[in-house]
Amino acid sequence: VDLLKEMIVRKGKVLNSNVLKVDSFINHQMDPVLMYEMGKVFADHFRKQNITKVVTIESSGIAPGIMTALALKVPCVFARKKKPLTLNEELLTTTVYSFTKKEENEISISQKFIDEQDCVLIIDDFLAHGEAALGLAKLTEQAGATVAGIGIVIEKAFQGGRKKLVDAGYEVKSLARIKSLSNSTVEFVEELELEEAAI
Amino acid sequence: VDLLKEMIVRKGKVLNSNVLKVDSFINHQMDPVLMYEMGKVFADHFRKQNITKVVTIESSGIAPGIMTALALKVPCVFARKKKPLTLNEELLTTTVYSFTKKEENEISISQKFIDEQDCVLIIDDFLAHGEAALGLAKLTEQAGATVAGIGIVIEKAFQGGRKKLVDAGYEVKSLARIKSLSNSTVEFVEELELEEAAI
Repeated sequence: VDLLKEMIVRKGKVLNSNVLKVDSFINHQMDPVLMYEMGKVFADHFRKQNITKVVTIESSGIAPGIMTALALKVPCVFARKKKPLTLNEELLTTTVYSFTKKEENEISISQKFIDEQDCVLIIDDFLAHGEAALGLAKLTEQAGATVAGIGIVIEKAFQGGRKKLVDAGYEVKSLARIKSLSNSTVEFVEELELEEAAI
Repeated sequence: VDLLKEMIVRKGKVLNSNVLKVDSFINHQMDPVLMYEMGKVFADHFRKQNITKVVTIESSGIAPGIMTALALKVPCVFARKKKPLTLNEELLTTTVYSFTKKEENEISISQKFIDEQDCVLIIDDFLAHGEAALGLAKLTEQAGATVAGIGIVIEKAFQGGRKKLVDAGYEVKSLARIKSLSNSTVEFVEELELEEAAI
């Protein structure tokens, strides 16, 4: 996790006060060793909850999702942003609002891959306003399964997604929490602030 | 690889004589342990060629791609089917014809992630008519890099993609080669036939 923060500082690019570009190691070019290390951290954090399935969303959730699934030795399912062509099956669907693109998108997972027995760990690369993670939680609950928690690689803590997820009753584990991207600088939420907030 | 063939027989669904559905372990729900084992096979096969980068295409190429990259300890880049929103950089682009969807699609990779020094291993989940793999090879060569070879999880050998790739000078390594999907049955290319073809 310290390695992740170090790479964010060294290789991330602050495009403006809302956008951090990490396409050289997270979501276009990907560092597989870092991904696996992060997957192990998520797995260790949530292992006690007897996760049966990792659920994520294409495309940039797939790498952290499958590495977490590898560490837990459970299957990983990714939600699709487009409907599959060979559509002869029941789908779980919901809509997700994208603040970046300012549009509603439908996401879906085949119903046969999640059921009431499942205890699901949701994984995604970014947490901003929380819409994607909430959508994945909705799909999981539509199937009657339990959401064990939500694992996020990079949380933009200034955009309020965590509050939305915690208010909805979900545990959120982020590997890097960014407090601000102002002045072209990445400022992380300090551990001390985290401890104070917990008191 | 025997495990892959076994899973294809046990869990794959032959929809018609052209379409094999493997969405329960390869391209919607994914088996991470199988993916990693397959990644190791690709890595071992191509390791001697000093691969510096794995290149694949979203979304279903990402899992086998990053597992191969993990086994080789090199970065993995996935080509995008849509242009990124934060478009302030040079892109390598080419068009890929989809026989399934009967349309041309543009795919792209940021130029900064492949250069002349790179020796690229291309990975994808399916080989049918070879269009996607050829497109990835084109992007690689646009960047001045070398294509070390192409690793495919499932080859539909009856659709001619291999010949196109071999004629273009690329080595193709497929983990499962399917000779026919007629009569709702998966028939693999036999090793003996492979040896005879090589004489």
